[in-house]
Amino acid sequence: MTEINKQVLLASRPQGRVTEDNFRIVEAPVVRPGAGEVLVRNEWLSLDPYMRGRMNDVKSYVPPAQLGEVMVGQTVGEVIESQDPRFEPGAKVLTQLGWQLYGVAKPNELTPIDVRRAPASYYLGVLGMPGMTAWFGLSEIGQPKPGETVVVSAASGAVGSVVGQLARILGCRAVGIAGGQAKCDYVVHELGFDACVDYKAGNLLQDLRQACPKGVDVDFENVGGEILDTLLRVMNRYSRIVLCGLIADYNASEPYGYKMLRSVLVNRIRMQGMIVFDWKDRYGEALGTLARYLEQGKLKYRESVVHGIDNAPGGFIALLKGENFGKQLVKLD
Amino acid sequence: MTEINKQVLLASRPQGRVTEDNFRIVEAPVVRPGAGEVLVRNEWLSLDPYMRGRMNDVKSYVPPAQLGEVMVGQTVGEVIESQDPRFEPGAKVLTQLGWQLYGVAKPNELTPIDVRRAPASYYLGVLGMPGMTAWFGLSEIGQPKPGETVVVSAASGAVGSVVGQLARILGCRAVGIAGGQAKCDYVVHELGFDACVDYKAGNLLQDLRQACPKGVDVDFENVGGEILDTLLRVMNRYSRIVLCGLIADYNASEPYGYKMLRSVLVNRIRMQGMIVFDWKDRYGEALGTLARYLEQGKLKYRESVVHGIDNAPGGFIALLKGENFGKQLVKLD
Repeated sequence: MTEINKQVLLASRPQGRVTEDNFRIVEAPVVRPGAGEVLVRNEWLSLDPYMRGRMNDVKSYVPPAQLGEVMVGQTVGEVIESQDPRFEPGAKVLTQLGWQLYGVAKPNELTPIDVRRAPASYYLGVLGMPGMTAWFGLSEIGQPKPGETVVVSAASGAVGSVVGQLARILGCRAVGIAGGQAKCDYVVHELGFDACVDYKAGNLLQDLRQACPKGVDVDFENVGGEILDTLLRVMNRYSRIVLCGLIADYNASEPYGYKMLRSVLVNRIRMQGMIVFDWKDRYGEALGTLARYLEQGKLKYRESVVHGIDNAPGGFIALLKGENFGKQLVKLD
Repeated sequence: MTEINKQVLLASRPQGRVTEDNFRIVEAPVVRPGAGEVLVRNEWLSLDPYMRGRMNDVKSYVPPAQLGEVMVGQTVGEVIESQDPRFEPGAKVLTQLGWQLYGVAKPNELTPIDVRRAPASYYLGVLGMPGMTAWFGLSEIGQPKPGETVVVSAASGAVGSVVGQLARILGCRAVGIAGGQAKCDYVVHELGFDACVDYKAGNLLQDLRQACPKGVDVDFENVGGEILDTLLRVMNRYSRIVLCGLIADYNASEPYGYKMLRSVLVNRIRMQGMIVFDWKDRYGEALGTLARYLEQGKLKYRESVVHGIDNAPGGFIALLKGENFGKQLVKLD
């Protein structure tokens, strides 16, 4: 072992928008695994909007990332040295090792993945947390019925793309919201959504009304801010809002002030917050179904890859601005 | 029949706060009942916050009140002339005849009430829509479990007072929010709530934290605005918000901008709009239970009465300002 580990640390907490200065990239020796531990070389790092929340020093559903520590995140990688008989060198695993090239984990921090069924990177996306989020959020909270209209924001992203395709499989009208014509074209022509509204076009309310002639029965909300406030104006009676992400707020120094909450009352909307960890005991059932849809070609999936750990901060900043196109990953090796 | 009917009409739609100018009081002949109809002399008129919504010309869960028409509202009264054998003169009935002394109704617009079980006016309050609202909102949407903390705003009002007492019966900690020390004293010492926060005291967040040391599991929200936005900061994980009223918004010309919606996501809160009509097929089950609690002395109830239909507009304006103390009624005869 002569390799050097490279790590991205949280250097400072962002005020509003994240900048490269919030990160520090350092080199460190590769730590050898102790008794019962496993050394993993990370191959793929997942970049996800939730990481923005961890950069703040506020109570959330998990503790914040600590200054000077490695940024938190999921990776897939290969076992290269093991002090546990259940993990042999060469095995591919899903980990929480964060933004670094190597890491040591305990066996209960590793999940074996089956790379014959799908590429390793898919376990960070359509077969990972984003796929689980789409599955449980839509089926358990959104509860769409055939013939209903399901809207999903960030429709070309890791979660949104799966939500809309699942809605179609369930017999619903699937309407995406995405930024720019290229993403909208992809959502409709590649993913098979019924329609997609470009929120950057400047006619959000009018375009939503046109794309949803029968109103909206389920909003799978990944963005929040003006998009959610506008959607509240077209939600149907007894509709559901899956509050999964508020990425519009993550970059703002002041939270958005929602003015249309009255619609929740008048229309008896059920709005519910969604964190995928709440369903962790049931990941297996979703994984099997999603993998089958992939194999059957019913589920399409796109990745947006930046290369090299040095580019992870830039990739993350682009993700927060909506500049990615598909599930955002960093290829590490 | 030489009596004159007196009616309160909607003269103009309010911009922001309601004023006396928005109403016009007129006299009209008493209309005689046609075939199959019933003439009712109204004895009590209910004043309720939802009426503010009807004064606007916007789509809501029911059509708006029309300019020049009698203001909508529930009344209880006595049948004085009947062309339907099921309703004899002298019978007491619940109606939707609105703000007027007399009215003609069809039998399906009348509900007989049992004045041996409770005073007639109670069927506009604790045994009427407010009581039903409290019952179904709390049990069906709030779903409190014993030991949980239930907060209700407008706690001394027709709905809030019942919500808190039901929460106590269910084994919960009941915390009210009300305006002023007199109302708070009443809520705690007369109604038996565990605590009550005076939102006018200027320390809402701090006082809520003190009154709810284990956080809030159910918010039965009648007021909205800053009260709801502040409550979002003390709601527990997996808590529920019954969005029943937004009276703070009704008087404002600009809707309040809610900044704490992120709490719904982070804490997996379920927020759901509540309109009592959705449970109209089940009023009977609530009525029986509420009447029994009243008879057993488990449910206390207070009325705030203005006398004479000429004072109905003033009573309504006071209600919207929170100046009432208990269920607001107009005694008509």
